[in-house]
Amino acid sequence: MAREADLIAALRGLATHPAARGLADDAAVLEVGGEALVLTHDMMVEGVHWLAGQDAADVAWKLVAVNLSDLAAKGAEPLGVLLGYALGDNDARFLEGLRDVLATHDVPLLGGDTVSSHGPQTMGLTAIGRATCRPVPSRSGAKAGDAVWITGPVGAAMQGFEALRDGDTSADTAAYRRPVALLAEGRMLAPRVTAMMDVSDGLLLDASRLAEASGATIWLDSFRVPFAPGLPPDRRDEAMRWGDDYQLLFTLPAESEPPCPAHRIGDVRPRADAPVLLDGAPATGHLGWQHGETR
Amino acid sequence: MAREADLIAALRGLATHPAARGLADDAAVLEVGGEALVLTHDMMVEGVHWLAGQDAADVAWKLVAVNLSDLAAKGAEPLGVLLGYALGDNDARFLEGLRDVLATHDVPLLGGDTVSSHGPQTMGLTAIGRATCRPVPSRSGAKAGDAVWITGPVGAAMQGFEALRDGDTSADTAAYRRPVALLAEGRMLAPRVTAMMDVSDGLLLDASRLAEASGATIWLDSFRVPFAPGLPPDRRDEAMRWGDDYQLLFTLPAESEPPCPAHRIGDVRPRADAPVLLDGAPATGHLGWQHGETR
Repeated sequence: MAREADLIAALRGLATHPAARGLADDAAVLEVGGEALVLTHDMMVEGVHWLAGQDAADVAWKLVAVNLSDLAAKGAEPLGVLLGYALGDNDARFLEGLRDVLATHDVPLLGGDTVSSHGPQTMGLTAIGRATCRPVPSRSGAKAGDAVWITGPVGAAMQGFEALRDGDTSADTAAYRRPVALLAEGRMLAPRVTAMMDVSDGLLLDASRLAEASGATIWLDSFRVPFAPGLPPDRRDEAMRWGDDYQLLFTLPAESEPPCPAHRIGDVRPRADAPVLLDGAPATGHLGWQHGETR
Repeated sequence: MAREADLIAALRGLATHPAARGLADDAAVLEVGGEALVLTHDMMVEGVHWLAGQDAADVAWKLVAVNLSDLAAKGAEPLGVLLGYALGDNDARFLEGLRDVLATHDVPLLGGDTVSSHGPQTMGLTAIGRATCRPVPSRSGAKAGDAVWITGPVGAAMQGFEALRDGDTSADTAAYRRPVALLAEGRMLAPRVTAMMDVSDGLLLDASRLAEASGATIWLDSFRVPFAPGLPPDRRDEAMRWGDDYQLLFTLPAESEPPCPAHRIGDVRPRADAPVLLDGAPATGHLGWQHGETR
Protein backbone atom coordinates (compact mmCIF):
# COMPACT_ATOMS: atom_id res chain seq x y z
CA MET A 1 0.00 0.00 0.00
CA ALA A 2 2.70 2.49 0.97
CA ARG A 3 4.75 1.38 -2.02
CA GLU A 4 1.85 1.86 -4.38
CA ALA A 5 1.02 5.26 -2.90
CA ASP A 6 4.66 6.32 -3.36
CA LEU A 7 4.64 5.11 -6.94
CA ILE A 8 1.42 6.93 -7.76
CA ALA A 9 2.81 10.11 -6.23
CA ALA A 10 5.92 9.76 -8.39
CA LEU A 11 3.85 9.06 -11.51
CA ARG A 12 1.88 12.24 -10.80
CA GLY A 13 5.20 14.07 -10.91
CA LEU A 14 5.67 12.77 -14.45
CA ALA A 15 2.13 13.45 -15.60
CA THR A 16 2.43 17.22 -15.94
CA HIS A 17 0.56 17.51 -19.25
CA PRO A 18 -2.81 19.22 -18.69
CA ALA A 19 -4.56 16.31 -20.46
CA ALA A 20 -3.45 14.03 -17.61
CA ARG A 21 -5.46 16.07 -15.09
CA GLY A 22 -2.78 15.27 -12.54
CA LEU A 23 -3.82 11.58 -12.61
CA ALA A 24 -6.52 12.73 -10.20
CA ASP A 25 -9.57 12.23 -12.39
CA ASP A 26 -11.43 9.26 -13.86
CA ALA A 27 -9.81 9.75 -17.25
CA ALA A 28 -7.42 11.86 -19.29
CA VAL A 29 -8.94 14.51 -21.54
CA LEU A 30 -6.87 15.25 -24.62
CA GLU A 31 -7.70 17.93 -27.18
CA VAL A 32 -7.21 16.63 -30.73
CA GLY A 33 -8.54 18.12 -33.94
CA GLY A 34 -11.27 20.12 -32.26
CA GLU A 35 -12.49 17.12 -30.27
CA ALA A 36 -11.84 16.30 -26.63
CA LEU A 37 -10.74 12.68 -26.43
CA VAL A 38 -11.39 10.89 -23.17
CA LEU A 39 -8.88 8.15 -22.40
CA THR A 40 -8.81 5.66 -19.57
CA HIS A 41 -6.98 2.42 -18.75
CA ASP A 42 -7.83 0.00 -15.96
CA MET A 43 -6.10 -3.26 -15.12
CA MET A 44 -7.60 -6.27 -13.40
CA VAL A 45 -5.80 -9.13 -11.66
CA GLU A 46 -7.22 -12.52 -10.72
CA GLY A 47 -7.71 -12.80 -6.98
CA VAL A 48 -7.50 -9.02 -6.57
CA HIS A 49 -10.20 -7.65 -8.87
CA TRP A 50 -12.16 -10.82 -9.31
CA LEU A 51 -12.55 -14.08 -7.42
CA ALA A 52 -10.38 -16.91 -8.66
CA GLY A 53 -12.70 -19.34 -10.40
CA GLN A 54 -15.23 -16.71 -11.47
CA ASP A 55 -16.80 -17.12 -14.91
CA ALA A 56 -14.37 -15.60 -17.43
CA ALA A 57 -17.30 -14.13 -19.37
CA ASP A 58 -18.18 -12.02 -16.32
CA VAL A 59 -14.56 -10.95 -15.97
CA ALA A 60 -14.54 -9.72 -19.57
CA TRP A 61 -17.79 -7.89 -18.98
CA LYS A 62 -16.47 -6.16 -15.91
CA LEU A 63 -13.15 -5.22 -17.50
CA VAL A 64 -14.97 -3.34 -20.24
CA ALA A 65 -17.76 -1.95 -18.05
CA VAL A 66 -15.45 -0.39 -15.45
CA ASN A 67 -13.56 1.44 -18.18
CA LEU A 68 -16.75 2.57 -19.91
CA SER A 69 -17.94 3.82 -16.52
CA ASP A 70 -14.96 6.18 -16.48
CA LEU A 71 -16.09 7.49 -19.87
CA ALA A 72 -19.64 7.83 -18.51
CA ALA A 73 -18.30 10.04 -15.73
CA LYS A 74 -17.00 12.42 -18.43
CA GLY A 75 -20.21 12.30 -20.46
CA ALA A 76 -18.18 10.73 -23.26
CA GLU A 77 -19.37 8.63 -26.16
CA PRO A 78 -17.17 5.49 -26.46
CA LEU A 79 -15.21 5.18 -29.71
CA GLY A 80 -13.49 1.88 -29.01
CA VAL A 81 -11.31 -0.22 -26.75
CA LEU A 82 -7.86 -1.79 -26.86
CA LEU A 83 -7.44 -5.05 -24.93
CA GLY A 84 -4.28 -6.32 -23.23
CA TYR A 85 -4.92 -9.94 -22.35
CA ALA A 86 -2.81 -12.63 -20.73
CA LEU A 87 -4.19 -16.05 -21.61
CA GLY A 88 -6.15 -17.77 -18.86
CA ASP A 89 -8.02 -20.94 -18.11
CA ASN A 90 -11.07 -20.18 -20.18
CA ASP A 91 -10.33 -17.87 -23.06
CA ALA A 92 -13.42 -19.02 -24.97
CA ARG A 93 -15.71 -17.87 -22.15
CA PHE A 94 -13.75 -14.63 -21.87
CA LEU A 95 -14.39 -14.04 -25.53
CA GLU A 96 -18.13 -14.66 -25.12
CA GLY A 97 -18.31 -12.08 -22.36
CA LEU A 98 -16.26 -9.64 -24.40
CA ARG A 99 -18.58 -10.04 -27.36
CA ASP A 100 -21.61 -9.48 -25.10
CA VAL A 101 -20.36 -6.37 -23.38
CA LEU A 102 -19.11 -4.76 -26.59
CA ALA A 103 -22.36 -5.51 -28.42
CA THR A 104 -24.48 -4.30 -25.51
CA HIS A 105 -22.66 -0.97 -25.43
CA ASP A 106 -22.12 -0.83 -29.20
CA VAL A 107 -18.38 -0.31 -28.76
CA PRO A 108 -15.81 -1.66 -31.23
CA LEU A 109 -12.68 -3.61 -30.35
CA LEU A 110 -9.90 -1.64 -32.06
CA GLY A 111 -6.74 -3.51 -31.12
CA GLY A 112 -4.52 -4.67 -28.33
CA ASP A 113 -2.21 -7.49 -27.47
CA THR A 114 -2.32 -11.03 -26.14
CA VAL A 115 0.47 -12.68 -24.16
CA SER A 116 1.21 -15.98 -22.53
CA SER A 117 1.90 -15.87 -18.85
CA HIS A 118 1.71 -17.92 -15.70
CA GLY A 119 0.70 -16.90 -12.21
CA PRO A 120 -2.49 -14.90 -11.61
CA GLN A 121 -4.17 -13.84 -14.81
CA THR A 122 -3.76 -10.13 -15.61
CA MET A 123 -5.52 -8.00 -18.15
CA GLY A 124 -5.90 -4.37 -19.03
CA LEU A 125 -8.25 -2.35 -21.16
CA THR A 126 -7.97 1.10 -22.66
CA ALA A 127 -11.22 2.85 -23.53
CA ILE A 128 -11.27 5.80 -25.89
CA GLY A 129 -14.19 8.17 -26.00
CA ARG A 130 -15.22 11.51 -27.41
CA ALA A 131 -16.57 14.19 -25.10
CA THR A 132 -20.11 15.25 -25.96
CA CYS A 133 -20.00 18.61 -24.19
CA ARG A 134 -17.57 21.26 -23.00
CA PRO A 135 -16.18 21.79 -20.53
CA VAL A 136 -15.67 18.07 -19.94
CA PRO A 137 -16.80 17.35 -16.35
CA SER A 138 -14.09 16.89 -13.76
CA ARG A 139 -13.99 16.06 -10.08
CA SER A 140 -12.84 19.52 -9.20
CA GLY A 141 -15.75 21.82 -10.00
CA ALA A 142 -18.03 21.35 -6.97
CA LYS A 143 -18.88 24.64 -5.25
CA ALA A 144 -20.19 25.40 -1.79
CA GLY A 145 -23.96 25.51 -2.06
CA ASP A 146 -24.19 22.82 -4.75
CA ALA A 147 -26.31 19.76 -4.07
CA VAL A 148 -24.75 16.27 -4.12
CA TRP A 149 -26.55 13.56 -6.08
CA ILE A 150 -26.13 9.88 -6.89
CA THR A 151 -27.82 8.01 -9.75
CA GLY A 152 -28.82 4.93 -7.80
CA PRO A 153 -28.30 2.62 -4.86
CA VAL A 154 -25.07 1.30 -3.38
CA GLY A 155 -24.52 -2.06 -1.72
CA ALA A 156 -25.75 -4.41 -4.43
CA ALA A 157 -22.22 -5.22 -5.63
CA MET A 158 -21.10 -5.94 -2.06
CA GLN A 159 -23.96 -8.39 -1.61
CA GLY A 160 -23.29 -9.96 -4.98
CA PHE A 161 -19.62 -10.41 -4.15
CA GLU A 162 -20.41 -12.07 -0.83
CA ALA A 163 -22.92 -14.45 -2.39
CA LEU A 164 -20.43 -15.44 -5.09
CA ARG A 165 -17.65 -15.89 -2.56
CA ASP A 166 -19.87 -18.00 -0.32
CA GLY A 167 -21.30 -20.09 -3.15
CA ASP A 168 -24.84 -18.88 -2.49
CA THR A 169 -26.46 -19.75 -5.81
CA SER A 170 -29.89 -18.46 -4.82
CA ALA A 171 -28.72 -14.83 -4.68
CA ASP A 172 -28.65 -12.37 -7.55
CA THR A 173 -24.99 -11.56 -8.08
CA ALA A 174 -25.28 -9.61 -11.32
CA ALA A 175 -24.51 -6.25 -9.72
CA TYR A 176 -21.03 -7.49 -8.85
CA ARG A 177 -20.46 -9.64 -11.94
CA ARG A 178 -21.95 -7.44 -14.65
CA PRO A 179 -21.95 -3.80 -13.62
CA VAL A 180 -23.61 -1.39 -16.02
CA ALA A 181 -21.75 1.67 -17.26
CA LEU A 182 -24.18 4.59 -17.08
CA LEU A 183 -23.21 6.06 -20.44
CA ALA A 184 -26.61 7.55 -21.31
CA GLU A 185 -26.97 9.10 -17.86
CA GLY A 186 -23.42 10.48 -18.04
CA ARG A 187 -24.15 12.18 -21.35
CA MET A 188 -27.37 13.71 -20.05
CA LEU A 189 -25.70 14.92 -16.89
CA ALA A 190 -22.42 16.23 -18.33
CA PRO A 191 -23.72 19.61 -19.55
CA ARG A 192 -25.37 20.33 -16.18
CA VAL A 193 -23.04 19.09 -13.45
CA THR A 194 -20.41 21.14 -11.66
CA ALA A 195 -18.46 17.94 -10.88
CA MET A 196 -18.94 14.25 -11.58
CA MET A 197 -17.22 10.89 -11.05
CA ASP A 198 -18.17 7.24 -10.89
CA VAL A 199 -18.40 5.45 -7.57
CA SER A 200 -15.98 2.60 -8.05
CA ASP A 201 -14.19 2.43 -4.71
CA GLY A 202 -16.83 3.34 -2.15
CA LEU A 203 -19.23 6.26 -1.78
CA LEU A 204 -17.41 7.79 1.19
CA LEU A 205 -13.97 7.46 -0.39
CA ASP A 206 -15.05 8.71 -3.79
CA ALA A 207 -17.00 11.60 -2.25
CA SER A 208 -13.87 12.52 -0.31
CA ARG A 209 -11.87 12.52 -3.56
CA LEU A 210 -14.41 14.78 -5.24
CA ALA A 211 -14.35 17.06 -2.19
CA GLU A 212 -10.54 17.17 -2.11
CA ALA A 213 -10.33 17.88 -5.83
CA SER A 214 -12.85 20.69 -5.43
CA GLY A 215 -11.32 22.16 -2.28
CA ALA A 216 -14.65 21.72 -0.50
CA THR A 217 -16.35 19.54 2.07
CA ILE A 218 -19.22 17.23 1.18
CA TRP A 219 -21.98 16.81 3.74
CA LEU A 220 -23.86 13.54 3.26
CA ASP A 221 -27.16 12.67 4.93
CA SER A 222 -27.00 8.92 5.44
CA PHE A 223 -30.81 8.62 5.54
CA ARG A 224 -30.96 10.02 2.01
CA VAL A 225 -28.46 7.56 0.53
CA PRO A 226 -30.26 4.93 -1.57
CA PHE A 227 -29.34 1.35 -0.72
CA ALA A 228 -29.84 -1.88 -2.62
CA PRO A 229 -33.23 -3.49 -1.93
CA GLY A 230 -32.90 -6.09 0.78
CA LEU A 231 -29.73 -4.67 2.26
CA PRO A 232 -29.97 -5.16 6.04
CA PRO A 233 -30.00 -1.77 7.79
CA ASP A 234 -27.00 -2.73 9.89
CA ARG A 235 -24.90 -3.06 6.73
CA ARG A 236 -25.61 0.40 5.34
CA ASP A 237 -22.48 1.92 6.78
CA GLU A 238 -20.41 -0.83 5.18
CA ALA A 239 -22.19 -0.43 1.84
CA MET A 240 -21.13 3.23 1.74
CA ARG A 241 -17.52 2.06 2.06
CA TRP A 242 -17.56 -0.74 -0.48
CA GLY A 243 -17.81 0.29 -4.11
CA ASP A 244 -18.12 -1.56 -7.42
CA ASP A 245 -21.65 -0.24 -7.96
CA TYR A 246 -20.56 2.24 -10.66
CA GLN A 247 -23.23 4.78 -9.88
CA LEU A 248 -22.47 8.36 -10.90
CA LEU A 249 -21.85 10.82 -8.08
CA PHE A 250 -22.32 14.43 -9.14
CA THR A 251 -22.96 17.94 -7.95
CA LEU A 252 -25.49 20.42 -9.32
CA PRO A 253 -26.31 23.99 -8.45
CA ALA A 254 -28.84 23.87 -5.58
CA GLU A 255 -31.81 24.99 -7.66
CA SER A 256 -31.11 22.55 -10.49
CA GLU A 257 -32.95 19.26 -11.09
CA PRO A 258 -31.09 16.35 -12.69
CA PRO A 259 -32.17 15.25 -16.18
CA CYS A 260 -32.26 11.57 -15.18
CA PRO A 261 -33.41 9.65 -12.11
CA ALA A 262 -31.13 10.43 -9.17
CA HIS A 263 -31.14 10.87 -5.42
CA ARG A 264 -30.10 13.99 -3.60
CA ILE A 265 -27.87 12.81 -0.78
CA GLY A 266 -26.21 15.93 0.56
CA ASP A 267 -24.61 19.22 -0.28
CA VAL A 268 -21.30 20.92 -0.82
CA ARG A 269 -19.98 23.20 1.91
CA PRO A 270 -16.92 25.37 2.32
CA ARG A 271 -13.90 23.31 3.11
CA ALA A 272 -13.79 22.17 6.73
CA ASP A 273 -11.17 19.96 8.34
CA ALA A 274 -12.67 16.77 6.93
CA PRO A 275 -13.50 16.30 3.24
CA VAL A 276 -16.66 14.32 4.06
CA LEU A 277 -19.11 14.84 6.88
CA LEU A 278 -21.58 12.01 7.38
CA ASP A 279 -24.62 13.37 9.21
CA GLY A 280 -22.38 16.15 10.43
CA ALA A 281 -19.50 14.07 11.78
CA PRO A 282 -16.22 13.52 9.92
CA ALA A 283 -16.29 10.21 8.04
CA THR A 284 -13.49 8.17 9.53
CA GLY A 285 -12.00 4.70 9.26
CA HIS A 286 -11.85 2.74 6.05
CA LEU A 287 -13.73 4.95 3.57
CA GLY A 288 -13.39 2.65 0.59
CA TRP A 289 -11.19 0.54 -1.56
CA GLN A 290 -7.74 2.06 -1.88
CA HIS A 291 -5.12 1.05 -4.40
CA GLY A 292 -3.24 -1.98 -3.23
CA GLU A 293 -6.00 -3.51 -1.15
CA THR A 294 -7.54 -6.87 -1.84
CA ARG A 295 -11.16 -7.66 -1.12
CA MET B 1 0.57 -21.38 -29.15
CA ALA B 2 -2.46 -23.00 -30.76
CA ARG B 3 -4.64 -21.54 -28.00
CA GLU B 4 -3.29 -18.05 -28.57
CA ALA B 5 -3.67 -18.36 -32.34
CA ASP B 6 -7.30 -19.47 -31.85
CA LEU B 7 -7.95 -16.57 -29.53
CA ILE B 8 -6.45 -14.04 -31.91
CA ALA B 9 -8.54 -15.46 -34.74
CA ALA B 10 -11.65 -15.09 -32.59
CA LEU B 11 -10.72 -11.55 -31.59
CA ARG B 12 -10.34 -10.69 -35.27
CA GLY B 13 -13.92 -11.82 -35.69
CA LEU B 14 -14.94 -9.18 -33.12
CA ALA B 15 -12.75 -6.42 -34.54
CA THR B 16 -14.85 -5.62 -37.56
CA HIS B 17 -14.62 -1.82 -37.29
CA PRO B 18 -12.46 -0.44 -40.12
CA ALA B 19 -10.29 1.40 -37.56
CA ALA B 20 -9.15 -1.98 -36.23
CA ARG B 21 -7.61 -2.87 -39.60
CA GLY B 22 -8.57 -6.48 -38.89
CA LEU B 23 -6.00 -6.58 -36.02
CA ALA B 24 -3.50 -7.23 -38.82
CA ASP B 25 -1.55 -3.99 -38.63
CA ASP B 26 0.86 -2.37 -36.18
CA ALA B 27 -1.86 -0.09 -34.82
CA ALA B 28 -5.49 0.94 -35.10
CA VAL B 29 -6.25 4.06 -37.13
CA LEU B 30 -9.35 5.91 -35.95
CA GLU B 31 -10.79 8.98 -37.64
CA VAL B 32 -11.81 11.60 -35.07
CA GLY B 33 -12.50 15.26 -35.65
CA GLY B 34 -10.65 15.40 -38.95
CA GLU B 35 -7.56 13.75 -37.49
CA ALA B 36 -6.46 10.14 -37.84
CA LEU B 37 -5.61 8.82 -34.40
CA VAL B 38 -3.13 5.98 -34.23
CA LEU B 39 -3.65 3.66 -31.26
CA THR B 40 -1.57 0.74 -30.08
CA HIS B 41 -1.29 -1.38 -26.94
CA ASP B 42 1.50 -3.83 -26.12
CA MET B 43 1.87 -5.92 -22.99
CA MET B 44 5.08 -7.25 -21.51
CA VAL B 45 5.54 -10.10 -19.03
CA GLU B 46 8.60 -10.85 -16.91
CA GLY B 47 10.41 -13.92 -18.17
CA VAL B 48 8.63 -13.71 -21.53
CA HIS B 49 9.41 -10.23 -22.84
CA TRP B 50 12.34 -9.50 -20.61
CA LEU B 51 14.81 -11.53 -18.59
CA ALA B 52 13.92 -11.94 -14.93
CA GLY B 53 16.35 -9.77 -13.01
CA GLN B 54 16.83 -7.21 -15.77
CA ASP B 55 17.12 -3.57 -14.74
CA ALA B 56 13.57 -2.25 -14.33
CA ALA B 57 14.62 1.05 -15.91
CA ASP B 58 15.40 -0.82 -19.13
CA VAL B 59 12.05 -2.62 -18.94
CA ALA B 60 10.24 0.72 -18.71
CA TRP B 61 12.26 2.04 -21.63
CA LYS B 62 11.42 -0.95 -23.77
CA LEU B 63 7.72 -0.94 -22.87
CA VAL B 64 7.40 2.62 -24.15
CA ALA B 65 9.78 2.23 -27.10
CA VAL B 66 8.07 -0.81 -28.60
CA ASN B 67 4.73 0.99 -28.56
CA LEU B 68 6.23 4.17 -30.01
CA SER B 69 7.78 2.01 -32.71
CA ASP B 70 4.26 1.00 -33.76
CA LEU B 71 3.42 4.69 -34.07
CA ALA B 72 6.62 5.22 -36.09
CA ALA B 73 5.46 2.55 -38.54
CA LYS B 74 2.36 4.71 -39.18
CA GLY B 75 4.35 7.94 -39.47
CA ALA B 76 2.46 9.17 -36.40
CA GLU B 77 3.40 11.87 -33.94
CA PRO B 78 2.96 10.56 -30.35
CA LEU B 79 0.42 12.42 -28.25
CA GLY B 80 0.77 10.46 -25.05
CA VAL B 81 0.73 7.12 -23.27
CA LEU B 82 -1.39 5.33 -20.67
CA LEU B 83 0.43 2.90 -18.38
CA GLY B 84 -0.96 -0.27 -16.82
CA TYR B 85 1.54 -1.36 -14.20
CA ALA B 86 1.63 -4.23 -11.72
CA LEU B 87 4.04 -3.42 -8.92
CA GLY B 88 7.38 -5.19 -9.08
CA ASP B 89 10.65 -5.54 -7.24
CA ASN B 90 12.07 -2.19 -8.22
CA ASP B 91 9.41 0.37 -8.93
CA ALA B 92 11.81 3.26 -8.32
CA ARG B 93 14.11 2.09 -11.13
CA PHE B 94 11.09 1.49 -13.36
CA LEU B 95 10.09 5.08 -12.77
CA GLU B 96 13.57 6.33 -13.68
CA GLY B 97 13.46 4.47 -16.97
CA LEU B 98 9.96 5.71 -17.64
CA ARG B 99 11.03 9.30 -17.03
CA ASP B 100 14.02 8.83 -19.37
CA VAL B 101 12.13 7.31 -22.26
CA LEU B 102 9.25 9.79 -22.08
CA ALA B 103 11.63 12.77 -21.89
CA THR B 104 13.81 11.43 -24.72
CA HIS B 105 10.81 11.11 -27.01
CA ASP B 106 9.00 14.17 -25.58
CA VAL B 107 5.86 12.12 -24.92
CA PRO B 108 3.53 12.83 -21.97
CA LEU B 109 2.19 10.29 -19.51
CA LEU B 110 -1.57 10.82 -19.65
CA GLY B 111 -2.96 8.22 -17.28
CA GLY B 112 -3.29 4.56 -16.50
CA ASP B 113 -3.57 2.25 -13.55
CA THR B 114 -1.39 0.53 -11.01
CA VAL B 115 -2.21 -2.76 -9.33
CA SER B 116 -0.71 -5.10 -6.78
CA SER B 117 -0.07 -8.61 -7.93
CA HIS B 118 2.12 -11.62 -7.38
CA GLY B 119 3.65 -13.98 -9.86
CA PRO B 120 5.53 -12.68 -12.90
CA GLN B 121 5.32 -8.93 -13.26
CA THR B 122 2.99 -7.80 -16.04
CA MET B 123 2.57 -4.39 -17.60
CA GLY B 124 0.90 -2.81 -20.57
CA LEU B 125 1.15 0.47 -22.37
CA THR B 126 -1.21 2.25 -24.73
CA ALA B 127 0.34 4.80 -27.05
CA ILE B 128 -1.81 7.39 -28.80
CA GLY B 129 -0.55 9.27 -31.82
CA ARG B 130 -1.75 11.55 -34.57
CA ALA B 131 -1.09 10.63 -38.18
CA THR B 132 1.00 13.20 -40.02
CA CYS B 133 -0.03 12.20 -43.53
CA ARG B 134 -2.85 10.49 -45.43
CA PRO B 135 -3.36 7.79 -46.29
CA VAL B 136 -1.84 6.40 -43.09
CA PRO B 137 0.63 3.68 -44.14
CA SER B 138 -0.48 0.10 -43.74
CA ARG B 139 1.08 -3.29 -44.31
CA SER B 140 -1.17 -3.98 -47.24
CA GLY B 141 -0.13 -1.54 -49.95
CA ALA B 142 2.98 -3.20 -51.42
CA LYS B 143 2.75 -3.72 -55.17
CA ALA B 144 4.65 -5.98 -57.53
CA GLY B 145 7.58 -3.97 -58.84
CA ASP B 146 8.10 -2.01 -55.61
CA ALA B 147 11.49 -2.16 -53.90
CA VAL B 148 11.81 -3.45 -50.34
CA TRP B 149 13.88 -1.39 -47.88
CA ILE B 150 14.96 -1.51 -44.26
CA THR B 151 16.22 1.43 -42.20
CA GLY B 152 19.16 -0.36 -40.56
CA PRO B 153 20.81 -3.55 -39.44
CA VAL B 154 19.28 -6.55 -37.72
CA GLY B 155 20.96 -8.85 -35.20
CA ALA B 156 22.12 -6.34 -32.60
CA ALA B 157 19.20 -7.06 -30.26
CA MET B 158 19.84 -10.80 -30.53
CA GLN B 159 23.47 -10.30 -29.54
CA GLY B 160 22.50 -7.97 -26.73
CA PHE B 161 19.99 -10.47 -25.38
CA GLU B 162 22.54 -13.27 -25.41
CA ALA B 163 25.17 -11.18 -23.64
CA LEU B 164 22.68 -10.16 -20.96
CA ARG B 165 21.47 -13.72 -20.52
CA ASP B 166 25.04 -15.01 -20.26
CA GLY B 167 26.20 -12.25 -17.93
CA ASP B 168 28.77 -10.98 -20.44
CA THR B 169 29.35 -7.49 -19.04
CA SER B 170 31.89 -6.54 -21.71
CA ALA B 171 29.30 -6.57 -24.50
CA ASP B 172 27.12 -3.68 -25.58
CA THR B 173 23.57 -4.76 -24.83
CA ALA B 174 21.79 -1.47 -25.46
CA ALA B 175 20.15 -2.63 -28.68
CA TYR B 176 18.19 -5.21 -26.70
CA ARG B 177 17.65 -3.17 -23.55
CA ARG B 178 16.92 0.26 -25.00
CA PRO B 179 15.59 0.01 -28.53
CA VAL B 180 15.00 3.27 -30.33
CA ALA B 181 11.63 4.03 -31.91
CA LEU B 182 12.34 5.51 -35.34
CA LEU B 183 9.71 8.22 -35.08
CA ALA B 184 11.49 10.82 -37.23
CA GLU B 185 12.23 8.26 -39.94
CA GLY B 186 8.66 7.03 -39.86
CA ARG B 187 7.32 10.54 -40.40
CA MET B 188 9.70 11.15 -43.31
CA LEU B 189 8.83 7.85 -44.91
CA ALA B 190 5.06 7.81 -44.40
CA PRO B 191 4.13 10.07 -47.36
CA ARG B 192 6.30 8.03 -49.75
CA VAL B 193 5.90 4.36 -48.84
CA THR B 194 3.43 1.94 -50.37
CA ALA B 195 3.58 -0.20 -47.19
CA MET B 196 5.45 -0.01 -43.89
CA MET B 197 5.77 -1.87 -40.58
CA ASP B 198 8.31 -2.19 -37.80
CA VAL B 199 10.48 -5.29 -37.51
CA SER B 200 9.66 -6.49 -34.03
CA ASP B 201 9.40 -10.24 -34.46
CA GLY B 202 12.03 -11.10 -37.09
CA LEU B 203 12.75 -9.79 -40.57
CA LEU B 204 11.57 -12.93 -42.35
CA LEU B 205 8.37 -13.23 -40.32
CA ASP B 206 7.51 -9.55 -40.56
CA ALA B 207 8.29 -9.48 -44.28
CA SER B 208 5.98 -12.45 -44.71
CA ARG B 209 3.23 -10.55 -42.85
CA LEU B 210 3.67 -7.53 -45.08
CA ALA B 211 3.61 -9.80 -48.14
CA GLU B 212 0.47 -11.62 -46.95
CA ALA B 213 -1.32 -8.36 -46.17
CA SER B 214 -0.41 -7.04 -49.60
CA GLY B 215 -1.26 -10.25 -51.50
CA ALA B 216 2.27 -10.34 -52.89
CA THR B 217 5.55 -12.16 -52.50
CA ILE B 218 8.67 -10.46 -51.17
CA TRP B 219 12.00 -11.45 -52.66
CA LEU B 220 14.89 -10.75 -50.31
CA ASP B 221 18.56 -10.82 -51.27
CA SER B 222 20.35 -11.99 -48.15
CA PHE B 223 23.62 -10.38 -49.22
CA ARG B 224 21.90 -6.98 -49.22
CA VAL B 225 20.48 -7.29 -45.70
CA PRO B 226 22.45 -5.10 -43.27
CA PHE B 227 23.65 -6.89 -40.16
CA ALA B 228 24.91 -5.56 -36.85
CA PRO B 229 28.66 -4.87 -36.87
CA GLY B 230 30.55 -7.84 -35.45
CA LEU B 231 27.79 -10.35 -36.12
CA PRO B 232 29.50 -13.61 -37.16
CA PRO B 233 28.57 -14.52 -40.75
CA ASP B 234 27.27 -17.91 -39.64
CA ARG B 235 24.63 -16.19 -37.50
CA ARG B 236 23.13 -14.06 -40.24
CA ASP B 237 20.36 -16.48 -41.00
CA GLU B 238 19.38 -16.53 -37.33
CA ALA B 239 19.52 -12.73 -37.11
CA MET B 240 16.92 -12.50 -39.88
CA ARG B 241 14.63 -14.66 -37.73
CA TRP B 242 15.08 -12.90 -34.39
CA GLY B 243 13.55 -9.47 -34.08
CA ASP B 244 13.53 -6.77 -31.37
CA ASP B 245 15.64 -4.43 -33.55
CA TYR B 246 12.66 -2.15 -34.36
CA GLN B 247 13.92 -1.15 -37.77
CA LEU B 248 11.31 0.01 -40.25
CA LEU B 249 10.62 -2.30 -43.18
CA PHE B 250 8.97 -0.55 -46.10
CA THR B 251 8.26 -0.66 -49.79
CA LEU B 252 8.71 2.14 -52.32
CA PRO B 253 8.02 2.37 -56.02
CA ALA B 254 11.13 1.04 -57.80
CA GLU B 255 12.34 4.41 -59.06
CA SER B 256 11.92 6.13 -55.67
CA GLU B 257 14.74 6.92 -53.23
CA PRO B 258 14.03 6.93 -49.49
CA PRO B 259 14.22 10.29 -47.68
CA CYS B 260 16.34 8.82 -44.85
CA PRO B 261 19.22 6.35 -44.68
CA ALA B 262 18.00 2.88 -45.63
CA HIS B 263 19.09 -0.30 -47.36
CA ARG B 264 17.41 -1.81 -50.37
CA ILE B 265 17.12 -5.51 -49.60
CA GLY B 266 14.76 -6.90 -52.21
CA ASP B 267 11.65 -6.34 -54.21
CA VAL B 268 7.96 -7.10 -54.36
CA ARG B 269 6.77 -9.69 -56.88
CA PRO B 270 3.40 -11.09 -57.86
CA ARG B 271 2.14 -13.52 -55.30
CA ALA B 272 3.85 -16.92 -55.57
CA ASP B 273 3.28 -19.92 -53.32
CA ALA B 274 5.51 -18.56 -50.58
CA PRO B 275 5.12 -15.06 -49.12
CA VAL B 276 8.90 -14.64 -48.79
CA LEU B 277 11.64 -15.87 -51.10
CA LEU B 278 15.14 -15.66 -49.67
CA ASP B 279 17.63 -15.60 -52.56
CA GLY B 280 14.93 -17.22 -54.63
CA ALA B 281 13.99 -20.08 -52.31
CA PRO B 282 10.92 -20.08 -50.04
CA ALA B 283 11.88 -18.99 -46.52
CA THR B 284 11.06 -21.96 -44.31
CA GLY B 285 11.36 -23.02 -40.71
CA HIS B 286 11.05 -20.62 -37.80
CA LEU B 287 10.70 -17.22 -39.48
CA GLY B 288 10.48 -15.19 -36.29
CA TRP B 289 8.94 -14.71 -32.94
CA GLN B 290 5.30 -15.78 -32.95
CA HIS B 291 2.77 -14.97 -30.27
CA GLY B 292 3.04 -17.40 -27.41
CA GLU B 293 6.70 -18.18 -27.78
CA THR B 294 9.28 -17.43 -25.13
CA ARG B 295 12.86 -16.50 -25.93
